[in-house]
Amino acid sequence: MFTIPAGYTFSAVSAGFKYTGRNDLSLIVSECPAHAAGVFTTNRFQAAPVVKSRTSLDRSPMARAILVNAGQANACTGDEGLMLCDKTRIMVGEKLGMAPEDILVASTGVIGDQLRMDLWEKAVPELVDALGHCDALDMAKAIMTTDTFPKVVSKTVSLEQGEIRLLGMCKGAGMICPHMATMLGFVICDAQVEDGWWAESLRAAVDVSFNAITVDGDTSTNDCILALANGASGVCALSAQDKRLLKAALIDLCQDLAFRIVQDAEGGTKVLRIAVSGARSKGQAEIVARVVGHSPLVKTALYGQDPNWGRIVAAIGRSGADFNPDEVSVALGDTVIFQKGQPVDGDWDSILAPVLKRDEINVQISLGSGRGKYELLASDLTEEYIKINAQYRT
Amino acid sequence: MFTIPAGYTFSAVSAGFKYTGRNDLSLIVSECPAHAAGVFTTNRFQAAPVVKSRTSLDRSPMARAILVNAGQANACTGDEGLMLCDKTRIMVGEKLGMAPEDILVASTGVIGDQLRMDLWEKAVPELVDALGHCDALDMAKAIMTTDTFPKVVSKTVSLEQGEIRLLGMCKGAGMICPHMATMLGFVICDAQVEDGWWAESLRAAVDVSFNAITVDGDTSTNDCILALANGASGVCALSAQDKRLLKAALIDLCQDLAFRIVQDAEGGTKVLRIAVSGARSKGQAEIVARVVGHSPLVKTALYGQDPNWGRIVAAIGRSGADFNPDEVSVALGDTVIFQKGQPVDGDWDSILAPVLKRDEINVQISLGSGRGKYELLASDLTEEYIKINAQYRT
Repeated sequence: MFTIPAGYTFSAVSAGFKYTGRNDLSLIVSECPAHAAGVFTTNRFQAAPVVKSRTSLDRSPMARAILVNAGQANACTGDEGLMLCDKTRIMVGEKLGMAPEDILVASTGVIGDQLRMDLWEKAVPELVDALGHCDALDMAKAIMTTDTFPKVVSKTVSLEQGEIRLLGMCKGAGMICPHMATMLGFVICDAQVEDGWWAESLRAAVDVSFNAITVDGDTSTNDCILALANGASGVCALSAQDKRLLKAALIDLCQDLAFRIVQDAEGGTKVLRIAVSGARSKGQAEIVARVVGHSPLVKTALYGQDPNWGRIVAAIGRSGADFNPDEVSVALGDTVIFQKGQPVDGDWDSILAPVLKRDEINVQISLGSGRGKYELLASDLTEEYIKINAQYRT
Repeated sequence: MFTIPAGYTFSAVSAGFKYTGRNDLSLIVSECPAHAAGVFTTNRFQAAPVVKSRTSLDRSPMARAILVNAGQANACTGDEGLMLCDKTRIMVGEKLGMAPEDILVASTGVIGDQLRMDLWEKAVPELVDALGHCDALDMAKAIMTTDTFPKVVSKTVSLEQGEIRLLGMCKGAGMICPHMATMLGFVICDAQVEDGWWAESLRAAVDVSFNAITVDGDTSTNDCILALANGASGVCALSAQDKRLLKAALIDLCQDLAFRIVQDAEGGTKVLRIAVSGARSKGQAEIVARVVGHSPLVKTALYGQDPNWGRIVAAIGRSGADFNPDEVSVALGDTVIFQKGQPVDGDWDSILAPVLKRDEINVQISLGSGRGKYELLASDLTEEYIKINAQYRT
């Protein structure tokens, strides 16, 4: 079903942090030290596991394991939260015979509560015992919160020396759900890589995948992507061409995972692919894509299958990007409905009805003749989103 | 009921632009030339009446009338739209014996359609005949679109020389509804003022009122505030103290009107008063207030009467403002629930239940010990908003 990179084992158990009848504590272990890279939330409030994983990676770009709990975010928990986070690494490290700082950590769940150490103490021995008796899908299920399906993708790259394998998993349904914070992604790979290159490739992949999606425009205190590459494939000394192929596969993998997050957006019914081109720079294209992708009016219109170009045009106009209104065109699907600053005549309700029924809708915006372009995946906005988020805690 | 400034008459008739059984074309006329000021949308796509009114005010700061239609926005209509806009001013100007450029214009309604000149030709004579037979409330009703109630406020300022009167009206329910674009506001006053001072006072009043509210974060192609001051009160040569009083009344009037827009927000059930203080500058405070006020997660939580401080804190953290997380405090009503970067213990669900039931909720955010502060009024976000906006055109 999924191709698993060599040299990794998984575990998932039920600790009862928040959920009952499902696993909520999980672990990936690499049989040998792996080159590790991470991309973390830019939120000024950073959860304890974010602080701890970042610090470990700053000190050494090698790691052995990733430990994840769902149900408690360990965010806004002060010094005690940091101390308890360390304790969980020590507990797991002792059982595994690893230094605590070799274990990267990630949490998702309710903000503000301290970790329930009694539950950890009970669960950690079971967690370590279960290593190797679980597969990647078990783990992907154990990291879910409001997700409606687990998100796992694998890729294989064939090189002259042999095959290398990548596997990624993530959770996330609202871009953030601070009481269930939030987006987490893990990538494992069995190639032998160089630290700097691996970190830089992860950053590049995240930029065009997890950083290019939006559900509600929020960024949580817990967002992080961690990536390990352990060399267990035996394929080493990658050539420049090999690296290009591996990087392309990593980007592909991250984009597939990011797509699944938008697909599983809270209450969402559609994935909107907002492609802006002809901008004066990539940054200008991104501004427009984000304003359109965050506009509640655009998102509700497309949910309602309404070819309401006026809302898209108004969002472009207020974005703050620099362009000439007379050069702006907008297409839904492949049909241009607004061209050179003016509406194109047509019975769009009937012509576009089949396009707007789809699960994935392309919104193409051209701002002019510049070279800047950017693509953003966004969800639509529905009554169900309101329901989920207005009633989350009750 | 309302105190009407001296020297103004109103008219409102039914032209049938979009609505049936209600008035949709209206007019305010000043008996003598009035000092006129305007604040217009910053959207790059500007409706024809915005372009025309702005041009008139650039040429001369005097005007005699404001002509408003509801149902057709005359936005994204190109050169023909500009020409037809001029025609409407010529038609009304001929009947009134005024130069077209003395008539300021504002439109709200469906974007992209050209004005129905046949309807204008039929309605304009009736409109001019009805002058003086209508009151301010008739006019406030005629400028409504998705509004559920008319919005009129009057103020009287007592000076040594006598009384001066201000009356304002506005429409707006979504901050923008591009197919029903959008927010319009009109202020009339019978003081004798100086051009520069009047324009500058209007700008200051708009900054702390109409520019300090948000429903869905959108800014339409048609937003404008127009203000006339005709001197008909006989009160002239205002002293510095008189000006301060008049400016304070103008600010008060605009804030009252702006509050009503948020109160009437599409699908909204609550007005959120988001007050940020202790920021390093006013601009920094504004950034935080806007990110919190636009956050769908904050807006749905408060709709759901959920004291979910985690969502407020996460929005502050991702705002991009510069502050020390350990100095941040958040209060709902007057109750501090997050202090110095950490949650305050308490059974907030029960303690805050009475506060969260109210129609107006104060969200107080302190970022530290800086002097920067900003206050924003925001609506909550409800299933009804989605319903209105997903089904708007059908």
